[in-house]
Amino acid sequence: MAAADIERLIRLLGRLPGLGPRSARKAGLAMLKRPEAILRPLVEAMQLCAERVTACGICGNLDTTDPCSVCRDASRDDRVICVVQEVEDLWAMERLVGFKGRYHVLGGTLSAIEGRGPETIRIGALLARIEAASVEEVVLALGATVDGQTTAHYIHERLRSAGCVVTRLGHGLPVGGELNYLDEGTLEAAMRARQKVA
Amino acid sequence: MAAADIERLIRLLGRLPGLGPRSARKAGLAMLKRPEAILRPLVEAMQLCAERVTACGICGNLDTTDPCSVCRDASRDDRVICVVQEVEDLWAMERLVGFKGRYHVLGGTLSAIEGRGPETIRIGALLARIEAASVEEVVLALGATVDGQTTAHYIHERLRSAGCVVTRLGHGLPVGGELNYLDEGTLEAAMRARQKVA
Repeated sequence: MAAADIERLIRLLGRLPGLGPRSARKAGLAMLKRPEAILRPLVEAMQLCAERVTACGICGNLDTTDPCSVCRDASRDDRVICVVQEVEDLWAMERLVGFKGRYHVLGGTLSAIEGRGPETIRIGALLARIEAASVEEVVLALGATVDGQTTAHYIHERLRSAGCVVTRLGHGLPVGGELNYLDEGTLEAAMRARQKVA
Repeated sequence: MAAADIERLIRLLGRLPGLGPRSARKAGLAMLKRPEAILRPLVEAMQLCAERVTACGICGNLDTTDPCSVCRDASRDDRVICVVQEVEDLWAMERLVGFKGRYHVLGGTLSAIEGRGPETIRIGALLARIEAASVEEVVLALGATVDGQTTAHYIHERLRSAGCVVTRLGHGLPVGGELNYLDEGTLEAAMRARQKVA
């Protein structure tokens, strides 16, 4: 029974990840009921972002400057590049780990099944960066999924002649995790990665 | 590590119902990664709604016209008014039931605990509507919560002298529901509302 403009708003909200038809309707109504508190500030923020936010030409991060604030930060270590799949992974590394090197956002993974080859992600740009600078370590912080590990393997192969160390994130028991909920692969990896108690 | 503009967008998205900090970040990133497909159409739809959508002066529905399309619909039965708490309840009645009378959106409930009195919701406007027109039945389609039922009781009291029939939605077994998951109150109500098998 809603007007066409409202239906359209709700349909577009439903395209956002995590919002189904029901929650999109709820979010749309919340905006319409409180236009000054929610709708207008959100429109302004979205317009500002539409005008200003751009992908960093170096690492692929999203920021209001290009190069992004991470790439412009002179205090960071140029010798280490952390390769991630998506911008959210870069943000997670910054938020949770406080990594102080550089990043490279691939923008996805290779996928044999879905037919995504090396030209669909930013692997060429990564190789060019490594060739141009004196990079000593490339940390492959990719997902522990089939596609993530395929991508890690491919990048490792391409970097064999580059003269830099290639590392990946350690596998093992998640902090707070219980043994009897672990899958076999993780438990085996944790066993192999066992460390001497200090 | 996100720019201030992006952080602001994510914070504002997090004010929408159903979006926590995590899903707000995900939704914000989805917009920024696909500005032409998601961000810009959404901004346009929100701007249109901000300009056009208004609360109906008669029933309280949200629409791009005032009176709203329901109140303007000459084919509807003026003798029955269905009273609901929120605009989403009106939409649910339209979507699911196909009720063909008029509506009145209260915009909330009375609440002794949270100190919301009759002046905080559109009860005065409801009484004025009933007084002005020849309303024969008022359907109180309010939630089966303490506040919803308090509000229904209050409206019923205020309508004693109005000369119209006051009804409420039937309680009972939800369609598709199983007996052993029902609470006591619902099961008792269903027992009292039992009907002869035709």
